[in-house]
Amino acid sequence: MRVIADVLGADAPGEVLARACIEGAKSAGASLTLVASAEVFDALGAELLRETECVCCDEIVTMHDSPMSAVKGKKNSSMARALTLLKEDRGDFVLSAGNTGALVTGASVIVGRIRGVRSVAIGAVLPFDPPLLLLDSGANLNPTAENLLEYAHLGSLYMEALFQVKRPRVALINNGAEETKGPELYRSAYALMKADGKLNFIGNLEGRDVPFGKCDVLVADGFAGNLTLKLSEGFGAYLRKTLKEMLLQSAKSRVAALLLKKQIRALKQKLDYTEYGGAPLLGLKKTVIKAHGASDAKAIGNAIRFAARYAASGFAETLPLRLEGSK
Amino acid sequence: MRVIADVLGADAPGEVLARACIEGAKSAGASLTLVASAEVFDALGAELLRETECVCCDEIVTMHDSPMSAVKGKKNSSMARALTLLKEDRGDFVLSAGNTGALVTGASVIVGRIRGVRSVAIGAVLPFDPPLLLLDSGANLNPTAENLLEYAHLGSLYMEALFQVKRPRVALINNGAEETKGPELYRSAYALMKADGKLNFIGNLEGRDVPFGKCDVLVADGFAGNLTLKLSEGFGAYLRKTLKEMLLQSAKSRVAALLLKKQIRALKQKLDYTEYGGAPLLGLKKTVIKAHGASDAKAIGNAIRFAARYAASGFAETLPLRLEGSK
Repeated sequence: MRVIADVLGADAPGEVLARACIEGAKSAGASLTLVASAEVFDALGAELLRETECVCCDEIVTMHDSPMSAVKGKKNSSMARALTLLKEDRGDFVLSAGNTGALVTGASVIVGRIRGVRSVAIGAVLPFDPPLLLLDSGANLNPTAENLLEYAHLGSLYMEALFQVKRPRVALINNGAEETKGPELYRSAYALMKADGKLNFIGNLEGRDVPFGKCDVLVADGFAGNLTLKLSEGFGAYLRKTLKEMLLQSAKSRVAALLLKKQIRALKQKLDYTEYGGAPLLGLKKTVIKAHGASDAKAIGNAIRFAARYAASGFAETLPLRLEGSK
Repeated sequence: MRVIADVLGADAPGEVLARACIEGAKSAGASLTLVASAEVFDALGAELLRETECVCCDEIVTMHDSPMSAVKGKKNSSMARALTLLKEDRGDFVLSAGNTGALVTGASVIVGRIRGVRSVAIGAVLPFDPPLLLLDSGANLNPTAENLLEYAHLGSLYMEALFQVKRPRVALINNGAEETKGPELYRSAYALMKADGKLNFIGNLEGRDVPFGKCDVLVADGFAGNLTLKLSEGFGAYLRKTLKEMLLQSAKSRVAALLLKKQIRALKQKLDYTEYGGAPLLGLKKTVIKAHGASDAKAIGNAIRFAARYAASGFAETLPLRLEGSK
């Protein structure tokens, strides 16, 4: 398994991400093609890069670039180079922590969407019990109701193939349970999903029910989905911080912390949004994984392991056939 | 202080809400006008209603009614009656746990918006440290960028007046920190807020930063705001549940629970979204409070105390002048 990693233009510095990729690929037993700038390679040094294939390029897609200008105007960026390498079968998947919009547009243009898919969606797995696939978590901020229906199918097939969930329960995020609730986009999507006999559509889900395992696939537009993903992440971090403060407050609480050691470790893991580390772009011909912009070695390692499992499942390649069957 | 409470058409049964209102008003030292159906009054009985003014009506705005049809078609509903009583100065504020859209439209039509306010916003306080005002949390699902700018001003004035925050830090919820991020609505609102010299606008805030006290006022469209509010509520409940399971797991963990008694109580309070119990509709001539549809006596009591403080502050009445000054 070979990872092609684009480490420029993310929230974390390229060098930090590159180190995380080297370590992560090693721990996941994968080979690594690193696409980065000369500065990053210099800083890492030859010894560290001994087993890594290095692709050097100095153009960077920044967080300020609009998706189209990045794809059309920066053909030599690390992102475009990484995607082109994937297209040319020089690796099994691309991992990038860069500008999400540019990655989605770039991947759609360079790697290509599979036939019949009109809009790529980012599918992020939230570590609840059972895990919940949230899509779209940020690829398309202006989807149509038909796009949302497509996400429902993509998500169902994904949870079946990757998480062995039978007849995944699909819900639509909304501000009320009734089908009359929500903006026009959501009311139309509700009608389409309800009318679709192949989906196990269970209706609208309000934000307060999201952590309680009521569905397997949660459909949202990219803006609402991104908000849901990042709020979940934020609350996980907030709870970990609050818990830590609580346990360090006094001598008594520190004794309690010792008694709770096992449970605290389990809880921390439950609230850790780096567990899945990366989110695949669903609907592409090949595997592209969006890694968290501030990813550390652990998150990158998890993302690589996850991506390897995803790439090995052949999900992307068999998706056209699966989608055909679901219609 | 007199509360006018509409208890029909909410998620919780009318009788349950009515009992909560009677208890809540008592504990808050307020008089109560209860607007409900004959069935609810029968079930409560004369003894319980001894100090309550009863207004009987049998039409109910349900969760399925569209806002306009509810306001135009159900003039004798408990909601319309409660709002009319407020308009006629027969109480200090209305508390309702009914259909949010209908309450917003009904209040705008019957009670009226203050001059210069084009769109009413629901302002919900999230119990972080410091507390965060989130608006709009569900009044208007299709606001304009100008509406969002107005929310920023309403929210700033509110946090100054009710929470004594000087120059409240205003942020816009978004899927990225950069001003180029987000749907067109958000990019336009960003430009308007940035250009407004009277606002202490600090830029976009991503979901993951919401719990960490980085702003005092968080502006969102009603759909995104409602999602943020309900996700916060859901995560609070999820953590309380998870913590409880963790502490009851073994004999050792139960000892730890005893040692942590004080901290657990504080944490529970921190995660309790009934603490403020209700959210005011900002921009109206008088005070209307949206109570949580599944409110219990404690939440209703908190909502009444909070509303009493809000009504007593004269915020609604002095708002036209304050808004004038902020422009």
